[in-house]
Amino acid sequence: MNDKKLMEYARLVAGVGINVQKGQMVLINCPVECADFGRCLTTAAYDLGARDVIVNWSDDAVSREHWLRAEDSVFDAVYPWDILRNKTLAEAGMGRISVDASDPENLLGVDAERLQRWDVANGRDNREFYRSMMANGFPWCVVSVPSLKWAKKVFPELDAQQAVDKLWDAIFAAVRVTGDASAVKAWQDHCKHLETLCSKLNSLRLTQLHYTNALGTDVVVGLPEEHLWLGGADTSKAGVRFVANMPTEEIFSAPQRDAVDGVICASKPLALNGNLVEGIRLTLEKGRIVGIHADKGEDVLRRAIETDEGSHYLGEVALVPVNSPIAQSGLLFYNTLFDENAACHFAFGEAYPACVKGGDDLPLETLKARGINAESSTHVDFMVGTDDLSVIGTMQDGREVVILKDGRFAL
Amino acid sequence: MNDKKLMEYARLVAGVGINVQKGQMVLINCPVECADFGRCLTTAAYDLGARDVIVNWSDDAVSREHWLRAEDSVFDAVYPWDILRNKTLAEAGMGRISVDASDPENLLGVDAERLQRWDVANGRDNREFYRSMMANGFPWCVVSVPSLKWAKKVFPELDAQQAVDKLWDAIFAAVRVTGDASAVKAWQDHCKHLETLCSKLNSLRLTQLHYTNALGTDVVVGLPEEHLWLGGADTSKAGVRFVANMPTEEIFSAPQRDAVDGVICASKPLALNGNLVEGIRLTLEKGRIVGIHADKGEDVLRRAIETDEGSHYLGEVALVPVNSPIAQSGLLFYNTLFDENAACHFAFGEAYPACVKGGDDLPLETLKARGINAESSTHVDFMVGTDDLSVIGTMQDGREVVILKDGRFAL
Repeated sequence: MNDKKLMEYARLVAGVGINVQKGQMVLINCPVECADFGRCLTTAAYDLGARDVIVNWSDDAVSREHWLRAEDSVFDAVYPWDILRNKTLAEAGMGRISVDASDPENLLGVDAERLQRWDVANGRDNREFYRSMMANGFPWCVVSVPSLKWAKKVFPELDAQQAVDKLWDAIFAAVRVTGDASAVKAWQDHCKHLETLCSKLNSLRLTQLHYTNALGTDVVVGLPEEHLWLGGADTSKAGVRFVANMPTEEIFSAPQRDAVDGVICASKPLALNGNLVEGIRLTLEKGRIVGIHADKGEDVLRRAIETDEGSHYLGEVALVPVNSPIAQSGLLFYNTLFDENAACHFAFGEAYPACVKGGDDLPLETLKARGINAESSTHVDFMVGTDDLSVIGTMQDGREVVILKDGRFAL
Repeated sequence: MNDKKLMEYARLVAGVGINVQKGQMVLINCPVECADFGRCLTTAAYDLGARDVIVNWSDDAVSREHWLRAEDSVFDAVYPWDILRNKTLAEAGMGRISVDASDPENLLGVDAERLQRWDVANGRDNREFYRSMMANGFPWCVVSVPSLKWAKKVFPELDAQQAVDKLWDAIFAAVRVTGDASAVKAWQDHCKHLETLCSKLNSLRLTQLHYTNALGTDVVVGLPEEHLWLGGADTSKAGVRFVANMPTEEIFSAPQRDAVDGVICASKPLALNGNLVEGIRLTLEKGRIVGIHADKGEDVLRRAIETDEGSHYLGEVALVPVNSPIAQSGLLFYNTLFDENAACHFAFGEAYPACVKGGDDLPLETLKARGINAESSTHVDFMVGTDDLSVIGTMQDGREVVILKDGRFAL
């Protein structure tokens, strides 16, 4: 990592990620361990004319103490000042950056019931905020920088500094930061490429997708009649283009809530609520998850799926070829932001409204009527792509079309 | 600095500083640069049974960007979520720790008018909170740990690591942390010593103090009839003993608001709002500051004194002998927490209600009637002690008694 790349990365996130507009409020969630990057983001946001930049620092060690040792009742409600901040800034159309660098196993040993109670409380108390975020009410962007424990998890064989350096290299490659100020242009091109892919898929007007591979996935995923494939940049309510995830290699849509049947086997571990969940196998009937298994962390997974009724249904179907740049790195990041962009994935929980035409402006009941899983307080991606994955689409006239063959686009 | 001393220091602050009670909320304000200490404080607070510990991290670099670059209107109001948090936690009787480690000149170059507008807004919007804090509504404690820039300011001739190490040594000495777990006992003894001094002074029932030295200070400070000298531990509304400053070497009271006349020359630089103010000379008539001079930073000082009407009057008179342990270190800390405990000092702005009998429970109008400066949104200490300072008290019968001679207690 060098300072030049770090600043280029920060400018990319502020300029393309949330695309700061003059006079806009900016909120940055950042671990204290990554203070250098938080400072660069702050400078980059002010350079673009932010009204004010609020950095909401966090710390894995403090967070772990909180989860293990705070009184039980603390997890039944969000502090009112946190609700007020989220709500006020969302309504003001803030740009919101989240820097995700947590140790994937930071909350190992925390009671899964406690994690679930917090999921429920947080979903309820911040409902308005999360709904606004899912519907692109304001620009938001999730990015990552290395932290020591995370880097050691990805590169256990290296010493601390080497591991951090290697993870920086992998992240810079994934987000197209080279140090020669070409990242913004590279992202414009990349987003165009993803939009072209979406156009192709959208023109097919698929009714369903059939996934199969040797790992055991064999599932038919229905698609709503008015579904849209999206990828690259989103458009906020105020009309500003932004990129919600950096990196992003996916094109995604929303399944028909009640038309997913079969078995889904995850192809990578899932870092969920500070725990690693491995060997996931879900069974779905008429869209509902009716069978939950994991070789490791099953309790944490089960509690997450049982957050509310909507979390029993899929909310996202995303296609990523196994020859995506991140997949080709061959790394397992133990971090969904990266691992989901190296493999086809699904999410259980709430769908993005924009996945049906005009969805960001539609009321909840209309979204439901369009067939997507419009109401849940959670949204958890998990990876299913493999290099033998076959995805076959069905068109409205019943004809089949190969979408992915051996994990690669066949369009 | 070593881990053992750091943890002993954290346990001292949690156990004696705010004296955490089972089930109590704890708020820790801490710079990200001092994350190690913030983590130790968190652990120490949970060890004592805190309900939850909230760490409110800050950063000098982000703060400087905010002050220099945010839009003007940002400084006219406190964000409502910050007001709500302060108010809610104060009402809940939280323990509040503030770790002060800022570069004393972090805000050099910031428009003094901006600093003043924020002082006014903050005083207005957090009025209830600050009033509760001044009246011991909840336990609070201000402590310090080294940061790089601060350490370099104190020890400019040393390299970075040496400077930080030296500042740690000075701080550990000042707060009586030795690494052998004797700090709690040492503080109990120390607080008793300060209380004995207070008893002596209180028994004199002084009506005024006359300060003189060669630096130019020549001021008569009237004392309210029901004034009390305080020092060491305070008692919170809930009846819990706590120590608001660590270190603390002072015994203090409140002047008669309208009975301070003469000239006060500061004997040390004052770190005020991220600026150093040097060569302060104030002229007072009937309690009001009518002349303001500083060789450096006069604008920042003037703006602070002009925050509101109450900030034109003194709110604290504090006695510290020049042979106090901190004074004997010979160091200039550029940090009020230390420098005020190495020298006699005054404060302009609001008085502590407890400085008149039963004051914590008295309404504002009664406090005013008792003669103290009961209403201001600010409170700024500045140092006046020198090794030739003479302080002569007058008793109710007109007799004089030497309180300090050559800067040392003569009682």
